[in-house]
Amino acid sequence: MSYPQESFTQTSLLPGSLIARRREVVSSNTLLYQLEVLKKTGRYDAFKLQWHPSYSDEPETWPIPKHLFWDSDIGKWIEGACYFLHNQPDTKIHSAINDLVKMIRSAQQPDGYLNIHYTVVEPGKRFTNLRDFHELYNAGHLIEAALAHNALYKNNDLLDPLIKYVDLLCQTFGPGKDQTHGYPGHPEIELALLRLYRRTQNPKHLELARYFLTERGNPTGVDGRHYYVVEAEKRGDPAHARMSYWGGNDNALWYYQAHKPIVEQETIQGHSVRAMYLLTAASDLVGMSKIQGGRPSDDDHAQRLKDAIYRLWDNMVDRKMYLTGGIGAIKQWEGFGLEYFLPQSTDEGGCYAETCAAIGVMMLAERILQYDLDRRFGDVMELCLYNAMMTSMSHDGTKFTYVNQLASSDADLSKREEWFTCACCPPNVLRLFGQIGGYVYSDMRGGNDDVTQVNVHLYVPSRHEFEVGGGHQDQKRAGLTQRSNWPWEGRVEFEIEGVGTNAQVSIALRIPSWAKSWKITPPLPPDNTTLQKGYLVLPSHWVSSSPKFTLDIDISPRLISPHPYTNQDTIAVARGPVIYVVEDVDNPWATDHFKSLQIDPKCSIHQHHVTDDTTGDTFVALTIPKGGASVLNLSELHAGPEIEAEELHKGSTGSMVIDTNLNFVPYYFRANRGGKGQARVGLRRWHK
Amino acid sequence: MSYPQESFTQTSLLPGSLIARRREVVSSNTLLYQLEVLKKTGRYDAFKLQWHPSYSDEPETWPIPKHLFWDSDIGKWIEGACYFLHNQPDTKIHSAINDLVKMIRSAQQPDGYLNIHYTVVEPGKRFTNLRDFHELYNAGHLIEAALAHNALYKNNDLLDPLIKYVDLLCQTFGPGKDQTHGYPGHPEIELALLRLYRRTQNPKHLELARYFLTERGNPTGVDGRHYYVVEAEKRGDPAHARMSYWGGNDNALWYYQAHKPIVEQETIQGHSVRAMYLLTAASDLVGMSKIQGGRPSDDDHAQRLKDAIYRLWDNMVDRKMYLTGGIGAIKQWEGFGLEYFLPQSTDEGGCYAETCAAIGVMMLAERILQYDLDRRFGDVMELCLYNAMMTSMSHDGTKFTYVNQLASSDADLSKREEWFTCACCPPNVLRLFGQIGGYVYSDMRGGNDDVTQVNVHLYVPSRHEFEVGGGHQDQKRAGLTQRSNWPWEGRVEFEIEGVGTNAQVSIALRIPSWAKSWKITPPLPPDNTTLQKGYLVLPSHWVSSSPKFTLDIDISPRLISPHPYTNQDTIAVARGPVIYVVEDVDNPWATDHFKSLQIDPKCSIHQHHVTDDTTGDTFVALTIPKGGASVLNLSELHAGPEIEAEELHKGSTGSMVIDTNLNFVPYYFRANRGGKGQARVGLRRWHK
Repeated sequence: MSYPQESFTQTSLLPGSLIARRREVVSSNTLLYQLEVLKKTGRYDAFKLQWHPSYSDEPETWPIPKHLFWDSDIGKWIEGACYFLHNQPDTKIHSAINDLVKMIRSAQQPDGYLNIHYTVVEPGKRFTNLRDFHELYNAGHLIEAALAHNALYKNNDLLDPLIKYVDLLCQTFGPGKDQTHGYPGHPEIELALLRLYRRTQNPKHLELARYFLTERGNPTGVDGRHYYVVEAEKRGDPAHARMSYWGGNDNALWYYQAHKPIVEQETIQGHSVRAMYLLTAASDLVGMSKIQGGRPSDDDHAQRLKDAIYRLWDNMVDRKMYLTGGIGAIKQWEGFGLEYFLPQSTDEGGCYAETCAAIGVMMLAERILQYDLDRRFGDVMELCLYNAMMTSMSHDGTKFTYVNQLASSDADLSKREEWFTCACCPPNVLRLFGQIGGYVYSDMRGGNDDVTQVNVHLYVPSRHEFEVGGGHQDQKRAGLTQRSNWPWEGRVEFEIEGVGTNAQVSIALRIPSWAKSWKITPPLPPDNTTLQKGYLVLPSHWVSSSPKFTLDIDISPRLISPHPYTNQDTIAVARGPVIYVVEDVDNPWATDHFKSLQIDPKCSIHQHHVTDDTTGDTFVALTIPKGGASVLNLSELHAGPEIEAEELHKGSTGSMVIDTNLNFVPYYFRANRGGKGQARVGLRRWHK
Repeated sequence: MSYPQESFTQTSLLPGSLIARRREVVSSNTLLYQLEVLKKTGRYDAFKLQWHPSYSDEPETWPIPKHLFWDSDIGKWIEGACYFLHNQPDTKIHSAINDLVKMIRSAQQPDGYLNIHYTVVEPGKRFTNLRDFHELYNAGHLIEAALAHNALYKNNDLLDPLIKYVDLLCQTFGPGKDQTHGYPGHPEIELALLRLYRRTQNPKHLELARYFLTERGNPTGVDGRHYYVVEAEKRGDPAHARMSYWGGNDNALWYYQAHKPIVEQETIQGHSVRAMYLLTAASDLVGMSKIQGGRPSDDDHAQRLKDAIYRLWDNMVDRKMYLTGGIGAIKQWEGFGLEYFLPQSTDEGGCYAETCAAIGVMMLAERILQYDLDRRFGDVMELCLYNAMMTSMSHDGTKFTYVNQLASSDADLSKREEWFTCACCPPNVLRLFGQIGGYVYSDMRGGNDDVTQVNVHLYVPSRHEFEVGGGHQDQKRAGLTQRSNWPWEGRVEFEIEGVGTNAQVSIALRIPSWAKSWKITPPLPPDNTTLQKGYLVLPSHWVSSSPKFTLDIDISPRLISPHPYTNQDTIAVARGPVIYVVEDVDNPWATDHFKSLQIDPKCSIHQHHVTDDTTGDTFVALTIPKGGASVLNLSELHAGPEIEAEELHKGSTGSMVIDTNLNFVPYYFRANRGGKGQARVGLRRWHK
């Protein structure tokens, strides 16, 4: 079991690739830009515990005060900044971290308590609204910041106060008679505590995480009733407030994934970021149990947890995920809706696909891959990386989206904002890019034999250092380097170094499920070419004899559709892991957000390497030549509730061929070049 | 200007037609059945003003007590019963009406006030919640009951107390300094007051209706603020309660069609029944103004109101109406959603299509036809009658639906209930069938000449009596009889009687827009065959010389689809005005609510006159012979967010032809014969 937050230090990105360039933009622009925003908005100084004028503002979403997440905004920025400082020292960033750590230390109360809102705004009310007030969520992000800080600076300046706070939490929460039987409305602290435990080995830290994960959803947690119901009653919440907003009289416990214990949950529901953080922690707990033959052997609960994670993953990926990897279609509760209900835009019924949720999917996928090397997790992780996540940041790293719709509308144009009141997403992108190397590889040390297996999940040009498991040679460290122009070209060259001829190193390469063909050079013996759950495992004897090898993956454009039950009879263009979009900048004739545009499933697609004039970005652009696309001839349609069925698909009469090429750019690249803000991923299937 | 509630007495249905048989079922079963339910549930005795145990129940939808509509349930039953007693005396019904009238009279307060809830449950709080508490809505239904009672019994036993109550309302509401500047959250009293005015000619009654209609949505009605905002504040409503349930912080005034004055409203929004009742009243007001050349001449406000009605009608019919005529897709607020958002079932995003809303569409269409003879109103009126409305009642008239979905799901099977807590729909069906004759014809007396024009909107076999306009002959009354087996056969035979050779009677026949062809016999002179807004106007000289004539309308089955922007790539089967449905009773292989079923747009359709074994009903059933339908082969589809576009439509591999006929029955006939409760109107288009 390892964590990308730690293992990323083993991997250096080689310059020039798409991901390396995005990370470089974050490092050189976003980090400082976000620091300025933190300062400008009052967040930076908030741990000084002075009153800020915005504390008096009316909540935008009742009952959540706008400053409620400020602790986490700071925590996430520190965490991300520490990841970047590992290989790029920066005195300005360094001194801001120092400053913030001092302020956080000074904000700690004598008993260890550490939270801005409940110290400044509502003193005396701590732990009275675990459900909605993000107190433990904030604690979790500060713990993650402290761990990153500790790993970078090798001191305990931030870790000590957090451990002291956690001690208070360990006393406060738990199954004991005098303890509170609660758990956070927004999970986060669970995964932070499990990492903290790995650092401290203090069993209380593990136990608190386990308690939060198993107590959650207990219908009889407090005197035979649900903790959140009792808590709301104690607060005297007005009846039918907030909860009913999310649909009915059931207290909307599903919103918090607290309607039943995790192990009993059948479908993925509620707030999507909460769901992902929760399942990531649950997955960490599973990974920490001993797994044999795919089953955790030591713990029936771990097995039930693992079953639940798989059940919820499948439900999410097969029925509630957009083509871009985005999840959570419903704006109202920032979360999952009906199965197969995946409209592309606000004017078609909604599309949310929050940035943090896509990051959450990546976190969960990465954690499952630690104990189950199956490409269905790796494929989705890569899909989210290049699309749902990466589309949230502008080319220069200073503008963001919170919502990542697949199509624009007059009500919601395709454009980015500089910041958000609820600013969870931008610093989350920051810390993800900081640790991105940790998502590229994972190392598995053999149980019974001495083989080290290096798993390659992502084809990001990089050099990965790892420990060689066998004791038969001198050197303990070895390196694997991959070079490519991924995702624009499908050729990846590998080179392994520092491995003696007797070294026991195998390598597993993910062969994406969308790849129509692939080839390894030099060729493998025929009995080694069978994929194991979608990974090609290169045995150690072959690796020893072939320290340099090349993987070629067919990366030609493909046309894809969502499941027919989505009622989206649409076609999107993809190439490798990259999903494409049409924008009005490249197709200036568009006036209706491409809503009436149709493409021929038999169209040809031209590809060209381009360097964009405005941004200097390079990528492969795609074009459907004239004749392959048309628009619905709506003026021909009789108005009213019914249209003659034959009228709809009568070829040239019902459709007007567009008299120009149709131009696509990668979805992540949208909204970088001005224009009218019109864009669309899934286009109508042109039935000829 | 006339009202179907009054003009229905001019029309006698001939026995044997579908509509006559439905009306007969209502007369013989529903009327008594509903009386029993009124007694059993406590409604019947509620005007005795005793406490009923249910008054203590928690509201199902905050803050509406369950008994809040009881006054209207009684009112609607009395109204409907009076319509039936016109031609079918019944002592039991008669004495129940007598009883109820006595109780209502005894419930009136000395100052005229008349309402169960505010007399028994919350005395002293009258007129404090116009927005949500249905006080004026109830008053409206009691006025309609009183008018029906007065017309039948020619006494004022019920009308007097209602006029006294209206006098109190006229004092209470209005623009005066000491008057309340409010209006009902649920319109109904407006249309009732306009009819009352026609009876009383008391200008105060007209003025109150006009006030409610024009003051509605005034942003500065009370001290520069919106009436509902001020009212809620006065009540001390908890913040974010109820209103926010419907989506946000704007007080959800759109839910009540009170977000702006009617004349300024651009799109149809909010609760669909409220919208229809409101626009019906608005349309009555327009109809009462003098219209010349299609424009109300005397009143700029009437013209603006007329423009708004047309704008909202078009928005509704073109973008927010189901193939069945159902409106209001959104369950949460029983109303209109996004444009083109018309999912068929709960598991696809919702489908509400409330029965009362379909009745409301018929009311509105009938009112507009009074001043604008255009088939687009008549077509929709007929569509609602045979489908969205008629599907709400079981074959025996004792079971009902409130929601009329186009497809079932596991969560919402296709089945009927015996009654509802909020019981607006069943008595609404009752009173509609009672007055249905009033929807079949309308008479127009010429302005400058002496011609009477009889407009035939519906082809319901019947005899219609009307006054002949000219003074040149002896008899003043004439009759038009139509005979047919409509909607099963397209031949309609007409006969006009009592019209002398000089009589000035023209007849306008609606030629439905779905009719591919039609023929009149004896033939018309060629220069008379042009339709005028979809009506064939038979000139008086032709009518004089052809007192018997036949209209033949092509009624062969057709395949229809909703607008492509609905993202419903579906095909439904229709024949004449009747929309068809597949049910598992006739297609027992179905296990997925026909969700994966596809039909070939080029399929043939067989039709057979059948008599149903279970119910004895006769109708035309339809069949698509083996080979014309298939099911999606979902097991062939790769799971995950993307599917290869070509995989979806690869003919025989992606689809499995079903090995049997596919059987359809009329949509109105669904849920009458047991089965698993699986049904669907719109079926996937099979792309071969």
